[in-house]
Amino acid sequence: MGGSYQPNLFSPLTFHTHLAAFEAGSDTPRAYLERCLETIAAKESVVQAWVAINESAARTQADASTARWRTGRPLSQIDGMPVGIKDLLETKDMPTQLGCAAFSGNFPKRDNAAVWALREAGAVILGKTVTSELGGAHPGPTSNPFDPAHTPGGSSSGSAAAVGARMVPAAIGTQVGGSIIRPASYCGNYALKPTQGAINRGERQATSMSTHGPHAGSLEDMWAVAIEIALRAGGDPGREALSGPSALPPSHKPRALAVMETEGWAALDAASRAAFEQIVAQLAAAGVQILRRTGDPDLENFEGALAGAGALAADITAWENQWLTRNLVAQKPDGVSARGKRVLDVADRVGVDGYRERLRKRELLRDWYRRLADRVDAMIAPASPGPAPLWPGDTPGQPLLPRPTGDPVFNYPSSLLGAPVVTSPLTAVRGLPMGIQLMGQPGADARMVAIARWLRDTVRPVSV
Amino acid sequence: MGGSYQPNLFSPLTFHTHLAAFEAGSDTPRAYLERCLETIAAKESVVQAWVAINESAARTQADASTARWRTGRPLSQIDGMPVGIKDLLETKDMPTQLGCAAFSGNFPKRDNAAVWALREAGAVILGKTVTSELGGAHPGPTSNPFDPAHTPGGSSSGSAAAVGARMVPAAIGTQVGGSIIRPASYCGNYALKPTQGAINRGERQATSMSTHGPHAGSLEDMWAVAIEIALRAGGDPGREALSGPSALPPSHKPRALAVMETEGWAALDAASRAAFEQIVAQLAAAGVQILRRTGDPDLENFEGALAGAGALAADITAWENQWLTRNLVAQKPDGVSARGKRVLDVADRVGVDGYRERLRKRELLRDWYRRLADRVDAMIAPASPGPAPLWPGDTPGQPLLPRPTGDPVFNYPSSLLGAPVVTSPLTAVRGLPMGIQLMGQPGADARMVAIARWLRDTVRPVSV
Repeated sequence: MGGSYQPNLFSPLTFHTHLAAFEAGSDTPRAYLERCLETIAAKESVVQAWVAINESAARTQADASTARWRTGRPLSQIDGMPVGIKDLLETKDMPTQLGCAAFSGNFPKRDNAAVWALREAGAVILGKTVTSELGGAHPGPTSNPFDPAHTPGGSSSGSAAAVGARMVPAAIGTQVGGSIIRPASYCGNYALKPTQGAINRGERQATSMSTHGPHAGSLEDMWAVAIEIALRAGGDPGREALSGPSALPPSHKPRALAVMETEGWAALDAASRAAFEQIVAQLAAAGVQILRRTGDPDLENFEGALAGAGALAADITAWENQWLTRNLVAQKPDGVSARGKRVLDVADRVGVDGYRERLRKRELLRDWYRRLADRVDAMIAPASPGPAPLWPGDTPGQPLLPRPTGDPVFNYPSSLLGAPVVTSPLTAVRGLPMGIQLMGQPGADARMVAIARWLRDTVRPVSV
Repeated sequence: MGGSYQPNLFSPLTFHTHLAAFEAGSDTPRAYLERCLETIAAKESVVQAWVAINESAARTQADASTARWRTGRPLSQIDGMPVGIKDLLETKDMPTQLGCAAFSGNFPKRDNAAVWALREAGAVILGKTVTSELGGAHPGPTSNPFDPAHTPGGSSSGSAAAVGARMVPAAIGTQVGGSIIRPASYCGNYALKPTQGAINRGERQATSMSTHGPHAGSLEDMWAVAIEIALRAGGDPGREALSGPSALPPSHKPRALAVMETEGWAALDAASRAAFEQIVAQLAAAGVQILRRTGDPDLENFEGALAGAGALAADITAWENQWLTRNLVAQKPDGVSARGKRVLDVADRVGVDGYRERLRKRELLRDWYRRLADRVDAMIAPASPGPAPLWPGDTPGQPLLPRPTGDPVFNYPSSLLGAPVVTSPLTAVRGLPMGIQLMGQPGADARMVAIARWLRDTVRPVSV
């Protein structure tokens, strides 16, 4: 029993490490792409991270990038980087099927603003990655790259697995509950869930807690993808865009980190808790003040407000997603899964007054969180309640199994708070990755990346 | 010379006045619909307000409503009301072509959240009304119902004209610059441009200043449509929904109104200014304090911040709309007009840093406006710089004429401020309507309606 992952042995695929070779001509984006395609050919039949790959378009893009590097005029630090795009985002040269039978064959031939920005920066839009249905609970076919019996997490299943399987150095995910950070945790990725609104979602503005963010094998590539998008497409309409240096922000040692327990703390298994505590102990030994909720009224209040966070997030999102789902069910009753249709029951139960009340509850939670700003550089927590759980699949005729892509309990807080999170692959439990997340105040994305960099350079990965 | 409009003689089409007859059985929603269809048949060849009318579906809906009224169980106060929907909003039973050749034949078979809410309230979704291209500057074929040589205004051209022509008691418009209030002014409508986010825009979330709002022949029907939508679909994701009583809010006499001049004041012609001043004089005579900018530092500061409002609004919206336009132009280069393509030049000039800077400028304007909250119940201004201008049409081979649907200069402030506006058809200039607008602080929608009601009951319409 157990997966194949060892955080100190695992060598993720990186792109930033090749720029000097591209400049020197000893490597090319085209050759880099071919290596990615070889890895995909070798692993895709088990991992199943992709719903579409446009090989010929990718080769054309990689050749154009190769020519730019050859003449010393790359468009950006990600010129030539092969990137996977979660299949919720529109791409002009591949279908966008949202993991949903009702969208089978959907091919709007438009680019999402973030995809447009990636192309402007010279990135190679290699393919569309598997998403759970409509970004919700019903899973796609992807398996965990470190043990196929386990889920890769969701809803950014394919993006996380493709990065974990070294198929691409980076991929775009989206999160509305825990859909970037949880699969990144399960698949050994670095990932950024940006401040709400900090990366332009283009046509995908329908929910108040969704974000687009990068998964990557390295902190450098993660940041490069995020900032290169933001430099071109900015943030959501009316919102401040992600800002920071175009290179990875310098390492920043935090003064004080606060352990965030959430509703998920009690259910954390002993090994996962031990792994997390070993990381925390290293931080304390390095001179970082570690704050705990017990005896700290601010933290107790915040944690108290987090009780019920899962239900709050689920209710808000169900209300916001109801029109999309209603239209789909009206048009194609068999095109949405039973799990997907549950959104409508939740929305009916919430109602317009209930939604208003939940928004106010969310605002109160944000108030509690703001009060921690002066004392706490970041919250620290496991990025998921342990490593990826087994996913045996539903049995026809039997009740649907709960949480097929794992439990977002450690991710609801940042979604509700609109707060930035960076997860780093610092621990392994039973041979599977478990990420460690840092959460900041809204707008502190670059600061979280700087602290994550310090952690990476300071902490020994832990395997239990 | 001059149009046919006299505000004291014009009898708008109303729906709320028929509810007792529906209850008594002396009139029915089906009969009401048939009268609307007769008016449309008589006037549409000149007015050209509609791009699609689904007569058979409307009759089916009206019959269902008739049955509900017969059994004393209407779904709402707008059960059976025939409504026009601006052709930017998706409707499941009619195409959605956005006034744009690139969307010719587009038929997504989905309902916008507001359309869904109208159906839930029993309204009859009669047809799609003409919009200028993509809600921008390039006009459709609609003419002003009071003189076909003049523009109906835009971009909600068809909704405003259909209400002005007594074809329907109410229609849905949208505004991002001046697209509800200006055409309503030109066509003798009441209209509400709600607080930003107060009425759910459904799939249309791509810009930070767009709103959905009702045009109507009466204040009662205007409010009924707005509140019945908000009671079912709420506001935009994450935003407070429009709230207030389900009946028209009680009349409210304001203590102090401030005249808002805007950049447009200097260019107001003498007759239009005289008409406006006669309204203001009546208000002063009724005991309302009228504040003027001269010698009032708060108002001077606010008006100073409004200098450049038009360019600010245009730049922000061009930046936000660029991806939609880029995709269209990439897909169908001949499917977007020369006026429509100009958005891209503006977006390129603005850039991501310029957009950030403009958002901050907008925030400063909002700060200045908030400082007036304690002293001013509402800003009052003409809803357009005079009545509808002539629209002779572009001449092939000649440069495009400026402002084919009139000048939004009096409308940019409310769009930039996210502030609610009610316009009322209280003046006529040379036989064409000119509206008087009341603008409140964000969230004060019901209060603006209450003040508009007091004006309606207090002020004599003015004809010059």
